Amino acid sequence: MLGRTYDTENCSAARALELVGERWSLLILRDALYRGTTRFADFQRSLGMASNILATRLTTFVAAGLMETQQYSAHPEHHEYRLTEKGRDLQPVVVALTAWGDRWAAPHGAPVVYQHAGCAGAVRDQLRCSICGDVGSSADVTVRPGPGMLEPWS
Amino acid sequence: MLGRTYDTENCSAARALELVGERWSLLILRDALYRGTTRFADFQRSLGMASNILATRLTTFVAAGLMETQQYSAHPEHHEYRLTEKGRDLQPVVVALTAWGDRWAAPHGAPVVYQHAGCAGAVRDQLRCSICGDVGSSADVTVRPGPGMLEPWS
Repeated sequence: MLGRTYDTENCSAARALELVGERWSLLILRDALYRGTTRFADFQRSLGMASNILATRLTTFVAAGLMETQQYSAHPEHHEYRLTEKGRDLQPVVVALTAWGDRWAAPHGAPVVYQHAGCAGAVRDQLRCSICGDVGSSADVTVRPGPGMLEPWS
Repeated sequence: MLGRTYDTENCSAARALELVGERWSLLILRDALYRGTTRFADFQRSLGMASNILATRLTTFVAAGLMETQQYSAHPEHHEYRLTEKGRDLQPVVVALTAWGDRWAAPHGAPVVYQHAGCAGAVRDQLRCSICGDVGSSADVTVRPGPGMLEPWS
């Protein structure tokens, strides 16, 4: 997890990065989203992480409401980690990060492709305009202050 | 920047996080994308960062090809930092992170709203299917191995 030195920054994107802004967090999330991984041992086997780091990340995810624990065995007592809606809602972030990585940092091509379960179409993230639909170029996107802008806008 | 401990992970999303996976990097990128900031002193004024941290981040961005330097004054010699296409292409990631943060971590509402310069419509990041269009639920997205998947798929 990242430090909290920057708490004066009123930025939703920065707040999201607090939670998934490092590789292990993202890889845990990816396994949970796309492999349906829920158990400590399975995350560890898949990712090859040190168990103390994995335990810390999962605890942070639970504390942040991205995952919740659920008992799946009483004797011995074992819990699994299930994504909440808040956690599952990070999927577009993972897809957007993947698209950029595929384009700029994947010398052998895309390692994975996202697919629509219904029709097997390729799933991509796209910037869409609520009025006219497609946003052609990133240069066409501007920002204006929203309801949660607390400081004077400069 | 994040460590390189995880280089065995063949994951485009993780590679993207290498570059923008911490708050300062994201905030610099945000200022460059939406405020048109290019000069060291302007980044520093806007973000209140320590100049050594800012210098390191900008140097890393240039080394990674997200920005390029351009001289704007010969005496004294001064350079500015301009986003490249590779850097500008991170915009959907910022928009996706913002959407998540607005929904789950913005108690006062969205601090900023993305707007389409052409028609003033709201710009949002959306998962789209290449065949049928909208992807209704995140549960409908699966992954399959792509051309760059080098290990056996499990």
